[in-house]
Amino acid sequence: MKPISFTIEKKMPGQKALGRAGTITTPHGDIKTPAFVTVGTKATVKALTPEMVADLGAQVVLANTYHLYLEPGDELVRDAGGFAKFMNWKGPTMTDSGGFQVFSLGVAFGSKVGKLSKVPQEVVTGEEVEKEDEAGKLAKIDEDGVTFKSYKDGSVHRFTPERSMEIQHNLGADMFFAFDECTSPMAPYEYQKEAMERTHRWAKRSLDAHKHLETRRPSGENRQALLGVVQGGRHRDLREESARVLGAMDFDGYGIGGSFDKDDMTTAVGWVNAILPENKPRHLLGIGEPEDLFGGVENGCDLFDCVAPTRMGRNGTLHTRDGKINIRNAKFTRDFTPVDSECDCYTCKNYTRAYISHLFRSNEMLAGTLGSIHNLRFLVTLVDQMREAILDDTFDTLKTDFLARYYKK
Amino acid sequence: MKPISFTIEKKMPGQKALGRAGTITTPHGDIKTPAFVTVGTKATVKALTPEMVADLGAQVVLANTYHLYLEPGDELVRDAGGFAKFMNWKGPTMTDSGGFQVFSLGVAFGSKVGKLSKVPQEVVTGEEVEKEDEAGKLAKIDEDGVTFKSYKDGSVHRFTPERSMEIQHNLGADMFFAFDECTSPMAPYEYQKEAMERTHRWAKRSLDAHKHLETRRPSGENRQALLGVVQGGRHRDLREESARVLGAMDFDGYGIGGSFDKDDMTTAVGWVNAILPENKPRHLLGIGEPEDLFGGVENGCDLFDCVAPTRMGRNGTLHTRDGKINIRNAKFTRDFTPVDSECDCYTCKNYTRAYISHLFRSNEMLAGTLGSIHNLRFLVTLVDQMREAILDDTFDTLKTDFLARYYKK
Repeated sequence: MKPISFTIEKKMPGQKALGRAGTITTPHGDIKTPAFVTVGTKATVKALTPEMVADLGAQVVLANTYHLYLEPGDELVRDAGGFAKFMNWKGPTMTDSGGFQVFSLGVAFGSKVGKLSKVPQEVVTGEEVEKEDEAGKLAKIDEDGVTFKSYKDGSVHRFTPERSMEIQHNLGADMFFAFDECTSPMAPYEYQKEAMERTHRWAKRSLDAHKHLETRRPSGENRQALLGVVQGGRHRDLREESARVLGAMDFDGYGIGGSFDKDDMTTAVGWVNAILPENKPRHLLGIGEPEDLFGGVENGCDLFDCVAPTRMGRNGTLHTRDGKINIRNAKFTRDFTPVDSECDCYTCKNYTRAYISHLFRSNEMLAGTLGSIHNLRFLVTLVDQMREAILDDTFDTLKTDFLARYYKK
Repeated sequence: MKPISFTIEKKMPGQKALGRAGTITTPHGDIKTPAFVTVGTKATVKALTPEMVADLGAQVVLANTYHLYLEPGDELVRDAGGFAKFMNWKGPTMTDSGGFQVFSLGVAFGSKVGKLSKVPQEVVTGEEVEKEDEAGKLAKIDEDGVTFKSYKDGSVHRFTPERSMEIQHNLGADMFFAFDECTSPMAPYEYQKEAMERTHRWAKRSLDAHKHLETRRPSGENRQALLGVVQGGRHRDLREESARVLGAMDFDGYGIGGSFDKDDMTTAVGWVNAILPENKPRHLLGIGEPEDLFGGVENGCDLFDCVAPTRMGRNGTLHTRDGKINIRNAKFTRDFTPVDSECDCYTCKNYTRAYISHLFRSNEMLAGTLGSIHNLRFLVTLVDQMREAILDDTFDTLKTDFLARYYKK
């Protein structure tokens, strides 16, 4: 028996349409898809209790392998009963492969290309910063794996596909990802191809290591589902090849990773999903902008995750049906209306823009809590509405109306 | 009809015993006393939602007049419907007079004594720091009031008794305090006497200003209860004089303010409460150490407030029945037991020391939330137990057992 199952309830109309509404069944409950997955980087959704996360309608929490490996360590998390039990989250869980953070946050070193010029450091500062290794060499990748330095203390670590599987088994999520190399969209075609082919070999090794670890699992313990990660950058031939190669492997589902040029993303996702097996769930990694969510859903993605709503929520940038607002703006100091009068979240039901503005100006911790609840509820609800719209055949209307109002275009 | 009423349910036995259990009835509900009051400095109990505050058993929230006056301003809070509505707290509320912060946090200036050498800056840094005005002159006090500089931007402000009343009417708490001068325990006797006498004149002016403001209150709006603040430092004759003078005025209750030498405090509180009218509630301002709470309760105090539990909770110092622990200590990283196995708080029911230790080491916002919930629940429960013990005639046993275990003495 498989650790998860996926049922498609309805497909969008049209012969080539890819979008679908479905249900993923996990050992910790069902996920109605498409769904927005909440990020709990270090086994905590920043500034929120698990009850708040559940109350705002989030169905799944995704933790970051790289972060939990470094702190408090995956063996400690295993001994605590897995990251879900550690953080007191009762629902379905995921972990990522660690690949993205190793290549972006990890101050990797050695030979090879300078992979990423833009390094997200959200855990440290809540901000994106430009950062480069002194030698301009950021990654030491070899056929076997990746060597990198901790963002915390510069200590040297090494991930291989086998190690990533071992760590993710220790973290114990219901769904987790094969170890992949996440390339920069600036990398040349030849490098993208080389990295993708290595990712495919790592995918095979991840699958083998996972199957081996499953044979050692104590009876009675829930099995974990492994998702392969499609790469290939912005290139159609590579993306399609990656989807074919990984689609033929025995994964329980798929992630679509890597950076895209913003305008290419929806198209590239369509290339991939036209090839991936229809009956397995697909997770578009790291996407949380409303128009991208619409593009991902109509192109056949079932799951999405992104730190943007919580990061923005802690900084005072809040979603409204009429676009984003910065709640620190002077015009909100005496605005006694909710952040979004059409929103049903805890923040909007109980607090005014004036109060939230006051909390942000005063650097009160509750500010980040209320902002994160609102932004997460906004995106969770938006993707839930897309699901309902697929079921009701009203997706195009929802998309047109929402985008016109949100982006004023 | 009075804005609040106070009923004594039971007195501790013995002719000179002062301790009592009672009920304060306010327009927003009853307070079973003795009770520990939660501090919500800027109309937020730091790191907690109002639901968390209610769930941990807190009956009352006290906000700081000085802070709300500076940010976001008392008129804005008035227009928001008062600080309780602004912050979505449904229960009884208090504000302090602003006096303590003006003399400690406010970088006051001009002539007169350098009042306090130790300036709490908890709002800014969560730490106590040593701080003195360049000229070593920290307070400009005259018969009419006090001029001080904002801790935020150095702008100059002035509080008088009339202004404090006006501000506290704008903030709209159920109970609030007369404007007083808070002296340092280092100040000489002559200055303590002078300051106390001025505080008595300010008390009369506060009462007059309050009564005048009440005549202008719109019908249907709840009236507010004014509490006089007893001063007099560590000197018995001054404390007793202050209790006599203020006790004869038409206040709805009393605060006991000022700094005490730690060893003197319980004794000084007893001097005061032997004189204050028995049928009005008494609030011991700024006290939150367990042994001081026992001393305050058995010497006739009904209410206590202190920022210590939340400040400590944000710093990782947590109460247990066996004394305080620093959860960042290495020995807790693999401790999968609750902070205090006898505690029934949300934190102890759902999380381990290992998890909370991880959150503090990772600087996660949830750390401060879980720490504050636990510490507040600990003190609220402790004072609730004192109440039950008064009702059951078991106060001495509770006190002896608790202190022996907590302080290991």
